[in-house]
Amino acid sequence: MSDNPSFVLRTVQDAVFEDRRIPEIKDDEVLIAVKKTGICGSDVHFFVDGHIGPVAVEKPMVLGHESAGVVCKVGQKVKTLKEGDRVAMEPGATCRVCDDCKRGRYELCPEMKFAATPPHDGTLSWYYALPADLCYKLPDHLTLEDGALMEPLSVAVHAIATISQLRATQSVAVFGAGPVGLLCMAVARALGASRVVAVDVVPARLAFAQEYAATETYAPLEPEMRDGDHPEGTLAYSLRNARAMMVQLGIGERGPSGIDLAVDASGAEVAIQTGLLVVKHGGTFVQVGIGGVGAQIPALYLLAKELVYKGSFRYGPGDYQLAMALVRQGKIDLAPLVTHRYSFNEAARAFEAVRTGKSEDGKPVIKVIISGPDVSPVDLM
Amino acid sequence: MSDNPSFVLRTVQDAVFEDRRIPEIKDDEVLIAVKKTGICGSDVHFFVDGHIGPVAVEKPMVLGHESAGVVCKVGQKVKTLKEGDRVAMEPGATCRVCDDCKRGRYELCPEMKFAATPPHDGTLSWYYALPADLCYKLPDHLTLEDGALMEPLSVAVHAIATISQLRATQSVAVFGAGPVGLLCMAVARALGASRVVAVDVVPARLAFAQEYAATETYAPLEPEMRDGDHPEGTLAYSLRNARAMMVQLGIGERGPSGIDLAVDASGAEVAIQTGLLVVKHGGTFVQVGIGGVGAQIPALYLLAKELVYKGSFRYGPGDYQLAMALVRQGKIDLAPLVTHRYSFNEAARAFEAVRTGKSEDGKPVIKVIISGPDVSPVDLM
Amino acid sequence: MSDNPSFVLRTVQDAVFEDRRIPEIKDDEVLIAVKKTGICGSDVHFFVDGHIGPVAVEKPMVLGHESAGVVCKVGQKVKTLKEGDRVAMEPGATCRVCDDCKRGRYELCPEMKFAATPPHDGTLSWYYALPADLCYKLPDHLTLEDGALMEPLSVAVHAIATISQLRATQSVAVFGAGPVGLLCMAVARALGASRVVAVDVVPARLAFAQEYAATETYAPLEPEMRDGDHPEGTLAYSLRNARAMMVQLGIGERGPSGIDLAVDASGAEVAIQTGLLVVKHGGTFVQVGIGGVGAQIPALYLLAKELVYKGSFRYGPGDYQLAMALVRQGKIDLAPLVTHRYSFNEAARAFEAVRTGKSEDGKPVIKVIISGPDVSPVDLM
Amino acid sequence: MSDNPSFVLRTVQDAVFEDRRIPEIKDDEVLIAVKKTGICGSDVHFFVDGHIGPVAVEKPMVLGHESAGVVCKVGQKVKTLKEGDRVAMEPGATCRVCDDCKRGRYELCPEMKFAATPPHDGTLSWYYALPADLCYKLPDHLTLEDGALMEPLSVAVHAIATISQLRATQSVAVFGAGPVGLLCMAVARALGASRVVAVDVVPARLAFAQEYAATETYAPLEPEMRDGDHPEGTLAYSLRNARAMMVQLGIGERGPSGIDLAVDASGAEVAIQTGLLVVKHGGTFVQVGIGGVGAQIPALYLLAKELVYKGSFRYGPGDYQLAMALVRQGKIDLAPLVTHRYSFNEAARAFEAVRTGKSEDGKPVIKVIISGPDVSPVDLM
Repeated sequence: MSDNPSFVLRTVQDAVFEDRRIPEIKDDEVLIAVKKTGICGSDVHFFVDGHIGPVAVEKPMVLGHESAGVVCKVGQKVKTLKEGDRVAMEPGATCRVCDDCKRGRYELCPEMKFAATPPHDGTLSWYYALPADLCYKLPDHLTLEDGALMEPLSVAVHAIATISQLRATQSVAVFGAGPVGLLCMAVARALGASRVVAVDVVPARLAFAQEYAATETYAPLEPEMRDGDHPEGTLAYSLRNARAMMVQLGIGERGPSGIDLAVDASGAEVAIQTGLLVVKHGGTFVQVGIGGVGAQIPALYLLAKELVYKGSFRYGPGDYQLAMALVRQGKIDLAPLVTHRYSFNEAARAFEAVRTGKSEDGKPVIKVIISGPDVSPVDLM
Repeated sequence: MSDNPSFVLRTVQDAVFEDRRIPEIKDDEVLIAVKKTGICGSDVHFFVDGHIGPVAVEKPMVLGHESAGVVCKVGQKVKTLKEGDRVAMEPGATCRVCDDCKRGRYELCPEMKFAATPPHDGTLSWYYALPADLCYKLPDHLTLEDGALMEPLSVAVHAIATISQLRATQSVAVFGAGPVGLLCMAVARALGASRVVAVDVVPARLAFAQEYAATETYAPLEPEMRDGDHPEGTLAYSLRNARAMMVQLGIGERGPSGIDLAVDASGAEVAIQTGLLVVKHGGTFVQVGIGGVGAQIPALYLLAKELVYKGSFRYGPGDYQLAMALVRQGKIDLAPLVTHRYSFNEAARAFEAVRTGKSEDGKPVIKVIISGPDVSPVDLM
Repeated sequence: MSDNPSFVLRTVQDAVFEDRRIPEIKDDEVLIAVKKTGICGSDVHFFVDGHIGPVAVEKPMVLGHESAGVVCKVGQKVKTLKEGDRVAMEPGATCRVCDDCKRGRYELCPEMKFAATPPHDGTLSWYYALPADLCYKLPDHLTLEDGALMEPLSVAVHAIATISQLRATQSVAVFGAGPVGLLCMAVARALGASRVVAVDVVPARLAFAQEYAATETYAPLEPEMRDGDHPEGTLAYSLRNARAMMVQLGIGERGPSGIDLAVDASGAEVAIQTGLLVVKHGGTFVQVGIGGVGAQIPALYLLAKELVYKGSFRYGPGDYQLAMALVRQGKIDLAPLVTHRYSFNEAARAFEAVRTGKSEDGKPVIKVIISGPDVSPVDLM
Repeated sequence: MSDNPSFVLRTVQDAVFEDRRIPEIKDDEVLIAVKKTGICGSDVHFFVDGHIGPVAVEKPMVLGHESAGVVCKVGQKVKTLKEGDRVAMEPGATCRVCDDCKRGRYELCPEMKFAATPPHDGTLSWYYALPADLCYKLPDHLTLEDGALMEPLSVAVHAIATISQLRATQSVAVFGAGPVGLLCMAVARALGASRVVAVDVVPARLAFAQEYAATETYAPLEPEMRDGDHPEGTLAYSLRNARAMMVQLGIGERGPSGIDLAVDASGAEVAIQTGLLVVKHGGTFVQVGIGGVGAQIPALYLLAKELVYKGSFRYGPGDYQLAMALVRQGKIDLAPLVTHRYSFNEAARAFEAVRTGKSEDGKPVIKVIISGPDVSPVDLM
């Protein structure tokens, strides 16, 4: 059977099922029957807006990139995998030849073929082909859902372990308690952070964060009006907010009571500002949340405090391996994040739930998983 | 004689000569007859505005912090210096006890006593006391003016060598061709940069930069009007400007044709924006120029290119030593920077020249030096 | 009362109690009534041999350097401590002025005054003076014995966290299961190491290590005779031993099954050799155990595997703080290490126990603690 | 024409010309007409001994790996090169898939196919196939001999720039003034080292080093006899030798007069020992010279000085590019190193010259180059 049903974004807010061809695999690739796929904010961005910054959907594209599945065909040169293996799928194939690939920064490869980033098709198909070295075999005690969530976990690992180089006993503040923010908190705890402060404007998210991985939470101040009816500027607000946060939580400007690392997982300008203001002198701020093209920052503070402000994009060498190790060793539990599950045929409803932040019954969404077709990979072929 | 004439900023734009007491020195200090003092933009900021960001002049303060002089008295425990030694003066005494001092980041010391940063008196006095280890003996072939300019050179060394960790054959773009920008270019060349692009809006500064240390120059585009008479936004302008700069100079987004390091030595928002846009994927941006409290930045590009944006503040361990070594070994020539010289009594005229950017005869200012009293230190005492 | 009874090494193997003067304290110092002191192998080395390598005891010297106590007098400028505070004592006062102190490597300070390293007196006195910033206030839930053991723990923190920069989920092998080796294992676990292999020739030590912090143990092979009665060379032995260890424990040469970090805490030549041979390509070997002046190493393997072989000496900036944090947060439990306790008057018996490795009743020694006089510090003065 | 004459090592000390097949190229490869090949000490090791450490020649193998040539055929997917391009050849093709390749350490790849390292054929053929990204196009002002010498230069760049991270104004001592040692000196100078001390037992080599790149030279002491006729131990000798070197050259144990980096490019045990002894506290020692399997080192000094001893093996990402940049920019001149030139047919004589260290006329060898056949690549095919 050559069918490969796929969930395709044809144009903005228009996604349908199409029959695609089952991909041919090269000698170093495997074919995977995709069994579990998480829905990510960026999938929804492309669905709703048709673009993220300058990256735009210009032709029909299969959605999805947080996946795990079962190997159902193995290229001639593949020695590390066999049919039937359950694998987490790292969904970005790189050129392996450019300077960035060779120097250990393959996330910057200009030839990157990343699932569901235009123009490359995503993983919401029955079958998907990947180089074998991007498939990570799941040990028996991990589920295929764990495997799918290795993708956002690797984003968090990249931000916290690789880009920030967090060290045990350091203090962290994470702005934004969506899936990536929560996973950043979990990674920080797993790496031995002594203090993990969750910041979010939604109280229910803070409550979940506290339960899941944060040691403390902070609910931002309300913005104020000035001179009657002008809202205060964002930077003025953030200065007020950062001061209030430092007082409320006993955060110092330096030394052991200071925040060593602030992470923005929200993309919001005020989160970036507040993060740069609360982090201690000589500390690090990492931006992993995608927001607008521009953001105003407190540049004079960045200079005088000698901060390091780093961008963190997807994941690079070693990140999937570290994510796998942290879950395998029980240092991170991914199961609590999955709040909603849909079958492959319900993909449109799944996207709607992520878009609105809740399912039809009003239950707030953290992570939505779409299951692949419920037959064995062997039967499928 | 106990007189110690000093040039004192009493309040905004009101500086006068006052008689201060000659400081007592501690066992580990030396007393220096100050012979040469450069005037820095920050001196003029305090003079004109009374503050830099939140740091304000609240009581009369001696100005000046770029100085060299002759040792005229030596504390009991000092073994490394003797009377008559000509020394460059590192003008910031630290506590040596806090975590930042001990871990090798003394520029962040909260107890820093930095000359002419409120409330600490500066060096524009006949005499100034310093811990002996902050005095760097000048070899015979270096002048006292070289010694005074070790201060801004150390700022550049900190930004380029210590904070940025520039490596030989890398490419650098420096925004702002004032003294610190020029010295950043000189340090980049001395460290083996293959390409040093100077960017400034003043053509005469670009010409000087080209002669002094830059391998190439770029004159920014003019801002445009939109819809008749609205100026374009700064970020829109910077995107245009960065693209034009990349085309004009053949700058790539990655690899050997890319810019490894962009440095802002201007503090201007468009310079920060353009710098973040022209630097290559995975590259570094360092801000050493002090501007407004806030600046809008292209945050999405910072994230997707995985840039590292670092603040560089003054100088820390090893920077003065490296500055001394680069000049001593002939890798940097400081003499061409000094365009104007004034006697101690002409200090007000010297500040006016820096403030307006030219002397009374219209000659553009790069660096102004004020000489101390023209008698020997021994006679002075 | 001016008495300050002290346990003094007069010459090799001749230690007696002497009355010393209570030290005067400087403005930035505190006087501490020493309450608990651990005995270290290096104390015993000086006691038994009179020297460690080229560092020799040339005049009578008070022994002891692993101490905690109660502050009983506070210098005029000290703001961080008050009388009655229980503190862990970092027993090395540095010059704070040399290049090494200023760049964050104060452990290399040539002016270091380290307790019980000739010619500086140690802490086995009723009273000892220290700069206030070298005293770390113990939280209520930590004991004075914990405070004394912060010293060897800081040695381990320096080796594992600072020098090796161990990261979570990495694999570690520690050679030598004495106190420092055991603490290296504990630090590795606390930092998130996935695998901590203890290696020692004494089965009882391996058993203790397994219980305390190791995930696995390895008992080295017996050396063999060649051609009848010539013992094999140490390097030939170590090659055999390393291979056996790798086979027995499933250690790979590269990748996730490899050892990322090997630590020698024994000083034994075969441990150094085996460590360099079992560590993976591109891995790190840290030597913290003090042995003979020379050791033969498998240099060709070091080169071809691009190993990094680092010396770790005492501790530097941040190490005591990290040690305190790990114990305070419950990530390391020091109590199990203390096997023997003696009163101050029994110091000679305490040294004998460490020297022979067991007490008079045959109980094997891990850590011996000597208590100070059993009266309150206030009464003492 | 299918001929591909090659210089083949059949077994120890038995090398002959054989006709090999012209290799087929893959889509991402190019075929190169090899025009210049330098002879390296390791080629001669395999020729004379049949092995280097555990790596042994077990079947006939083409020799040579320091080569440049002209592209004469281009794979279908190659876009960066065309026929006729003159290229330096990086002679090690890696798997691009293993953890080491992906994390930026491809020199450690276990699947490395390195020219003339058993069992892989070398470059002393008329034709050789390479992946296109391992071919570096020579600018017009560089010769094919420059191109061949990029190989040993990359070894030096890897040791000095990548592994050691040498910084401008630091001090370096290089032990061994053969080709790699000389190139290490040249790289150190090009990176801005203030002091480059050459050490070698052969006076003529020191003289050449002084002329070429060293700022100073040191001729080691003669070993002494003890008790009449026992030679002193190597470590005792090296302690004497290191002290003499430090006195003679005014080398300090710390600070600006100390040696920041010692490099062994000889493989000799006494060079390793002396290097570890002369380098300053907290300094770095890099071993790039291949010697015996084992070497005795002053381990106690390594520990107490907190040295970092690193192996440097071949070259990794960015090294060839940096080598090319340094020569292209005129910071290193390779031409003076070539003392002897032979035609392809004279390969046996060329090896004999390297083996004995001089040509038949007694002229001392630094670098020997073998030219390929003197016809155009187009004619050849």
